[in-house]
Amino acid sequence: MADDSQIRIGLLSCANIVRKVSRAINLAPNATVSAIASISNSIEEMKSFAASNNFPPTAKIHGSYESLLEDPDVDAVYFPIPASLHVEWAVRAAQKGKHILLDKPVALNVYEFDQIVEACEANGIQFMDGTQWIHNPRTAKIKEFLTDPVSFGQLKTVQSCFSFAANENFLKNDIRVKPGLDGLGALGDAGWYTIQASLLANSFRLPKTVTGLPGHVLNDAGIVLSCGALLDWEEGVTATIYCSFLANVTMEITAIGRKGTLRVNDFVIPFQETEASFTTSTLACLSEHKTMNEIPQEACMVIEFARLVGEIKNRGAKPDGFWLSFSRKTQVIVDAVKESLDNNLERVLVSGR
Amino acid sequence: MADDSQIRIGLLSCANIVRKVSRAINLAPNATVSAIASISNSIEEMKSFAASNNFPPTAKIHGSYESLLEDPDVDAVYFPIPASLHVEWAVRAAQKGKHILLDKPVALNVYEFDQIVEACEANGIQFMDGTQWIHNPRTAKIKEFLTDPVSFGQLKTVQSCFSFAANENFLKNDIRVKPGLDGLGALGDAGWYTIQASLLANSFRLPKTVTGLPGHVLNDAGIVLSCGALLDWEEGVTATIYCSFLANVTMEITAIGRKGTLRVNDFVIPFQETEASFTTSTLACLSEHKTMNEIPQEACMVIEFARLVGEIKNRGAKPDGFWLSFSRKTQVIVDAVKESLDNNLERVLVSGR
Repeated sequence: MADDSQIRIGLLSCANIVRKVSRAINLAPNATVSAIASISNSIEEMKSFAASNNFPPTAKIHGSYESLLEDPDVDAVYFPIPASLHVEWAVRAAQKGKHILLDKPVALNVYEFDQIVEACEANGIQFMDGTQWIHNPRTAKIKEFLTDPVSFGQLKTVQSCFSFAANENFLKNDIRVKPGLDGLGALGDAGWYTIQASLLANSFRLPKTVTGLPGHVLNDAGIVLSCGALLDWEEGVTATIYCSFLANVTMEITAIGRKGTLRVNDFVIPFQETEASFTTSTLACLSEHKTMNEIPQEACMVIEFARLVGEIKNRGAKPDGFWLSFSRKTQVIVDAVKESLDNNLERVLVSGR
Repeated sequence: MADDSQIRIGLLSCANIVRKVSRAINLAPNATVSAIASISNSIEEMKSFAASNNFPPTAKIHGSYESLLEDPDVDAVYFPIPASLHVEWAVRAAQKGKHILLDKPVALNVYEFDQIVEACEANGIQFMDGTQWIHNPRTAKIKEFLTDPVSFGQLKTVQSCFSFAANENFLKNDIRVKPGLDGLGALGDAGWYTIQASLLANSFRLPKTVTGLPGHVLNDAGIVLSCGALLDWEEGVTATIYCSFLANVTMEITAIGRKGTLRVNDFVIPFQETEASFTTSTLACLSEHKTMNEIPQEACMVIEFARLVGEIKNRGAKPDGFWLSFSRKTQVIVDAVKESLDNNLERVLVSGR
């Protein structure tokens, strides 16, 4: 049920992920679905989609993205549309004063993303990318351990991977393997998570250099299906990432500090929806940790996004720039990996980008 | 207590590791300690070492390596001496008909190791390197999973690391950080295990190329204290290794196949001496596995080594060449990583070496 304090979110498209995110919006006490627009579904299909996903009866159906962006009952927009369309529609949304929850990869490259950054900054827009695990209460606990000088110490290396074995249909038809749509393939999708895990472990500092690793796999159109990369912060601090559409589902972080080690075996989507675990060790002394979250991590994301939008809408606060900056750094690294893969795995300087 | 069916092992030096290995020999029903020789300890010190480590009273004390190699009551020799001395003493041992259990790294480079190979082959010598985890019953179970076409499928990547945070004394004085002794540093020591884990996961095939990763750390003498490398088997099959003397103790293997994933958190030295565990998943369905070993893994190694020597000594069998070949491949990769690190991280072709 909508109330005045709730942030009203408009959804672009009836993509599968919208089922998950609209459920999350329903679960978030400070947000509500207020509209949906799709350019590939009829009004009837959208109505049926709205009903089957328990949208509030007040949710409006729009026949075009433009129309949704004009809707005064929409405070913020969730964009599960191909990355190739992000720059156009996110900029237009920002210009209409709509706050932005944008799926990853946030753009095809950082030059495009900078247009979104500019539009957000010019219009006082709250931005957040749709990466969910970062909002799981477990992640806060992980961060606590990784910054603990006594139990973890100086980070030495963080190794993360996210892979899943996509089926034949996905590998032929999904937007993530199409050059004109999400042209960054496994790197912009699965790789996005591993890059954010690496940034998290390094206090969100950009590495100095990024190097693609031998052994990457491309499809016939040149889209990355599988790759690895090395991020180097110098002074012996590195990260390796591995992302793939071709290998069994694996979602791991191993972070090794001078004094401690962190292991997470399901960092992207916890094996269970309302609890999550990780292991730490200081020397060889192991501890298992468990965190509980009453609501799934995607609802935690919505709550935090809606909270920030609410601060702006109701209290005149400024947008929290952390999220723009975090997404931009991630995109910078995605671009650098791509550049390295395209250029014989040369080492790419990213500091200062 | 010695009996005629036991393989009589001579030990070179009173190094710390000899305590562990002589205990393992005592535990192995088919082996016995028959002699010790040290060039840096007095006869008295060796006697005391023998007594405090429960050597059989019949064990002889030799004042020189030469003398031990002449001893007719020695069937085989364990060599916990600096890698720089391996080629000389292993070749001499082989020429004297002594079987060889040689600590890793087996040599300073493969050219040296090939002299040992040649001497072993010319003299019908059983060779084995002193890597213990490979003999843990858990490793056989791991291998079973990794070669299972239904639950694991085609290997895509294996990521392994072995690190420990050495103290100041180690970093100044240990043979593993001295150019004239074990000049391969963390690579020849901790890295040896990760390379063997990578080979195990790839059915012991040499990769096509090896590439050192940015971010390695050398000491003032140019010895590797920490480094990573990428092994590429082509067709999208890779391994990353990470080894370090500068990071908290971590001993991980994550191997990802098309259909399954393996995780081992203590592959080098299991957290418990007589049981060991690992996790497998096929899709996202996790299974915990536990294996029991009545005796520690180093005794499993001694039993297998003594069994092979016994086959030769008592039944006229030929040496099992697998172990020479396994060590040689490992050394080839160690050399290639070193070569890459020394040459601006260039990709080094190793197939055919």
